[in-house]
Amino acid sequence: MSRLPEEEHPNKAFGWAARGTSGVLSPFKFSRRAAGEKDVAFKVLYCGICHTDLHNAKNEWGKTLYPLVPGHEIVGEVTEVGSKVEKFKVGDKVGVGCMVGSCHSCDSCTNNLENYCSKLIATYGGKYYDGTVTYGGFSDSMVVDEHFIIRIPHNLPLDAAAPLLCAGITVYSPLRFYGLDKPDLHIGVVGLGGLGHLAVKFAKAMGAKITVISTSINKKKAALENLGADSFFVSRDQDQLQAASGTLDGIIDTVSAQHPLLPLLGLLKTHGKLVLVGAPEKPLELPAFPLLQGRKIIGGSLIGGIRETQEMIDYAAKQSIKPEIEIIPIDYVNTAMERLLKADVKYRFVIDIGNMLKPTS
Amino acid sequence: MSRLPEEEHPNKAFGWAARGTSGVLSPFKFSRRAAGEKDVAFKVLYCGICHTDLHNAKNEWGKTLYPLVPGHEIVGEVTEVGSKVEKFKVGDKVGVGCMVGSCHSCDSCTNNLENYCSKLIATYGGKYYDGTVTYGGFSDSMVVDEHFIIRIPHNLPLDAAAPLLCAGITVYSPLRFYGLDKPDLHIGVVGLGGLGHLAVKFAKAMGAKITVISTSINKKKAALENLGADSFFVSRDQDQLQAASGTLDGIIDTVSAQHPLLPLLGLLKTHGKLVLVGAPEKPLELPAFPLLQGRKIIGGSLIGGIRETQEMIDYAAKQSIKPEIEIIPIDYVNTAMERLLKADVKYRFVIDIGNMLKPTS
Repeated sequence: MSRLPEEEHPNKAFGWAARGTSGVLSPFKFSRRAAGEKDVAFKVLYCGICHTDLHNAKNEWGKTLYPLVPGHEIVGEVTEVGSKVEKFKVGDKVGVGCMVGSCHSCDSCTNNLENYCSKLIATYGGKYYDGTVTYGGFSDSMVVDEHFIIRIPHNLPLDAAAPLLCAGITVYSPLRFYGLDKPDLHIGVVGLGGLGHLAVKFAKAMGAKITVISTSINKKKAALENLGADSFFVSRDQDQLQAASGTLDGIIDTVSAQHPLLPLLGLLKTHGKLVLVGAPEKPLELPAFPLLQGRKIIGGSLIGGIRETQEMIDYAAKQSIKPEIEIIPIDYVNTAMERLLKADVKYRFVIDIGNMLKPTS
Repeated sequence: MSRLPEEEHPNKAFGWAARGTSGVLSPFKFSRRAAGEKDVAFKVLYCGICHTDLHNAKNEWGKTLYPLVPGHEIVGEVTEVGSKVEKFKVGDKVGVGCMVGSCHSCDSCTNNLENYCSKLIATYGGKYYDGTVTYGGFSDSMVVDEHFIIRIPHNLPLDAAAPLLCAGITVYSPLRFYGLDKPDLHIGVVGLGGLGHLAVKFAKAMGAKITVISTSINKKKAALENLGADSFFVSRDQDQLQAASGTLDGIIDTVSAQHPLLPLLGLLKTHGKLVLVGAPEKPLELPAFPLLQGRKIIGGSLIGGIRETQEMIDYAAKQSIKPEIEIIPIDYVNTAMERLLKADVKYRFVIDIGNMLKPTS
């Protein structure tokens, strides 16, 4: 018999959970394990809302275990460390992203790419080593193996740091891995949401010229004036697509809806790279000729490893890269989810957990 | 007024041409330019038949200019050289592949990648610098700028050398460019035709373990026993696909018909590379999730540059890599084209032009 979430572990915890495919979140009492010798326990202060939270809350990928406490852009302050924890102490500001466990022995793990480990344990909705379900950062506390804890640099505001732990690393890692981090490259960013706006900021800091491609002309002003992109056009604008043909060294494509790849491949120079970081549910149409004719590649990338996540957040601190966020209280979360579905956010919701999450009883 | 092909240039030439979308070839009188100061003229001895010849003869890509003299796997003996030709002399054994001209000034050209030059002039059915149409190697003679001439190594039989000039470089180049040329990699080859059987031979010479994936179980014996592949399975065999899941470092996909990519992506290790060298007419279905989850890439590759083609053929000579060919007389060419359409050839037809092509009048 499995025990109730409230009784499973010794330490009381409180959060907001989805209970079914409506995805509506409501207050939820559960429990956290006692900090093991390599665990770091922390009080959650802020948690970003990622589009993935929405997919999972509604079970759109078919693997949700309810009740589901979402949240994998988590920042907080350490309250307790296990006896063998080496890198953190009580009071440290720390973060956790998309994962809290991996096998530590496969090729991916031994190359600091825990994100590609086939036994990766997701921060929420996963099965932990002990068989219990993991709960995410829409909650008052976390207990996580120190291997998966990121140190938040002193000069980074804690609320703005949160979205870097998923959205930030998701765009930073492919810029590095695919060699799109060299100065004076011309980089395209497709989609200007949580991921896209950070792709613009990181690529700009790396010295690139940036073109933003969006379905909405409404994003033009923000792209050029607020985010500092060099050019902007709407993805359906055939004239602009034609004029920009063969000009881009690489594209970070953040769109997770169905969309045509042919126009994007046309924008690439010979040997250009189109990197998908969004995951449309249905297959995309891939025309082979344009890949052959310019020796172009389409690649994918999925968040990043722990070492690279630390590198990314240190780089963001050094370069003063901060996500644009809208801070919300936890009881606004369902409205925020609805607005996220309509892409009505500039550019990331962050829940003020520390000040505003109070147990209801 | 454009002149008749026979009167366009001073030197008489004779070949076989397609005159319409039936693709049927018949004898054709035309002319070749006098050798310019940088030109090499040669008597054609052998010419391979590539699937592209079939597509073009039937105007399946919609850009054929009739009459069309196909053939871009051409080997012959030099009969005349221009005053400024530096690398070749009368009597040399030479070859020409898919191209006879390019801009010589773009990024691709200056990096020895003429094959990706947007002004590439195809060996047949292209417009030459002087505005005349180019004719291919199903003909008695060629006149080609020495830049696009390949030297055939002494120890390579001239008939077997021909298919290396298109099929050979088409699979060699991506093995090198995508880093699939390291010893002890596990490489998949999809499709066992003219390209595929050479991919097996080159990858094997580079030290790879090879798995051949084909639609036809009939190819198993040849793959394992004649070509020396290490394993073989039929592309629809779900059990074998499952068993081989995550085992390949890279795949050279030579199939130019519609086919599913998802099973092939599943065969790749994390960071594996699927390289398309065939060009299906209609878009393929690209599932995004598998690309993201293993940071896999799909790339394309199109023949190779002149320098690399010379490198490839020298490597083939050194490693004793020879295509498996069926030598045919020119008057068998239409039957050969029909058999090619049915993949009824092991593995490349080569026309014996030197001994068997005689002007009909």
